[in-house]
Amino acid sequence: MQLIDGKAIADIVKGEIAETVKKRKEQGLKVPHLAAILVGHDGGSETYVAHKVKACEQVGFESTLIRFEADVTEEELLSVVDKLNKDQEIDGFIVQLPLPKHISEQKVIEAIDYKKDVDGFHPINVGRTSIGLPSFVSATPAGILELLKRYEIPTKGKNCVVIGRSNIVGKPVASLMMQKAYPGDATVTVCHSRTENLKNVVSQADIIIAALGSPEFLTADMVKEGAVVIDVGTTRVPSEETKSGWKLKGDVKFDEVAPKCSFITPVPGGVGPMTIVSLLKNTLLATEIKF
Amino acid sequence: MQLIDGKAIADIVKGEIAETVKKRKEQGLKVPHLAAILVGHDGGSETYVAHKVKACEQVGFESTLIRFEADVTEEELLSVVDKLNKDQEIDGFIVQLPLPKHISEQKVIEAIDYKKDVDGFHPINVGRTSIGLPSFVSATPAGILELLKRYEIPTKGKNCVVIGRSNIVGKPVASLMMQKAYPGDATVTVCHSRTENLKNVVSQADIIIAALGSPEFLTADMVKEGAVVIDVGTTRVPSEETKSGWKLKGDVKFDEVAPKCSFITPVPGGVGPMTIVSLLKNTLLATEIKF
Repeated sequence: MQLIDGKAIADIVKGEIAETVKKRKEQGLKVPHLAAILVGHDGGSETYVAHKVKACEQVGFESTLIRFEADVTEEELLSVVDKLNKDQEIDGFIVQLPLPKHISEQKVIEAIDYKKDVDGFHPINVGRTSIGLPSFVSATPAGILELLKRYEIPTKGKNCVVIGRSNIVGKPVASLMMQKAYPGDATVTVCHSRTENLKNVVSQADIIIAALGSPEFLTADMVKEGAVVIDVGTTRVPSEETKSGWKLKGDVKFDEVAPKCSFITPVPGGVGPMTIVSLLKNTLLATEIKF
Repeated sequence: MQLIDGKAIADIVKGEIAETVKKRKEQGLKVPHLAAILVGHDGGSETYVAHKVKACEQVGFESTLIRFEADVTEEELLSVVDKLNKDQEIDGFIVQLPLPKHISEQKVIEAIDYKKDVDGFHPINVGRTSIGLPSFVSATPAGILELLKRYEIPTKGKNCVVIGRSNIVGKPVASLMMQKAYPGDATVTVCHSRTENLKNVVSQADIIIAALGSPEFLTADMVKEGAVVIDVGTTRVPSEETKSGWKLKGDVKFDEVAPKCSFITPVPGGVGPMTIVSLLKNTLLATEIKF
């Protein structure tokens, strides 16, 4: 069993991005500039955005954080989105989700110019990814593929089972894994809460991508000997072991599943660190090329 | 075994559309108007477009056919697309594919205003379908779902295997079948040319959607007793039985597969007639609502 070290790969990719940024500077080219809009003071969102800003610094990007209180109107938010769309200094930007309930997330996402939509949530990017056109791929699915690539895990013709059909992980990762490309070219199955006989489906998989958000859902009896297991779960569960009072739990019962796997991602330190790296890669792409 | 009569269902749906158009007229509302652009004189394309125009007449739509010779420039074509985008009289329009090689099909598709893209090929419609937003769904996948619905075939939690990953059938029908909806809510697997052990995957399916374009590919040994088989194949093969010198062959070896099925579509007369009906439904939708 080989552990997929997402932290280490994330550091390598960050190093590569930093190198590219350095070269761009030397050539007098524009330094990538990411903006993030943060609404309210949700603990998780604060942490994620802080990590994103820090990651920008690490690779030499410019970053701008735009904060709003939770009572910001949809109109105000949309007007800032419009401003960022038009601001040539900003190469890409994100609106940290979730948003307060009085604001339509979908409306805000669709208001973002898809050429600056480095989160890859805009329908046009989702569609372009599916068709196989150049696109901003949403961060977590892109991070998963990067891990498969860096560990040179074969995917062509393999039986890949995705558990979960969310718009930000399950569906796009399935879409990518079926493309005629590497990583990809896999036979892809999407399972979810309605799947009959889930154990039978999952236990035939060469590659399992668990993205349902149910702590320790995937148990050893559901996993074929030698399978590759990618754990996308990041549920906060109460814990007395940590200062914060909680710890992250994946969707995989790691201790019993790991011994059966050829490769497995831990939580934390697997897919998580790759998500921010994908965002950086998308921002670099937004700066380098226009599609 | 029950034969799914696509011709009969298509007639029923056309009747419903005609009824809606009649009511719209009575209420002084706009009559749906579909435009089609046809380039060159490809036999298949001529036939398809003629059928589409005729179907418009049958349901009381206005239709406009715009013809170009095969040497039309991409620029000329794009300028007509632009004109149709702006023409308030035209509710929806299609550009019949394939186009001559000197014209980028993708560029033309992306030039169409997605709100008039009744073929559902624009990336934004592909993305909206995947996310589960209101969209124009491409005609063949929409027709398949309509057949499942009209025959009240259960799909929730069922094992649905799609053979083929084309952008116009395989991928979008997979996307639809996994949505939290009826028809849909199925466990969906997409197989293709690279799939290892295809027979093993397909033979576990409750619903098989064969869309690979390989005549009589699906044989009885690949089909579970009681399965639902949807045949999307329409390959023209030479034939001495017909005046035209060819006949349509599906992807399913019908004679041996049919006895094992609970439901099966024939070729011709299965999915085919539904495709044009879906186009009519999309055009009606384009006239009725704006999303």
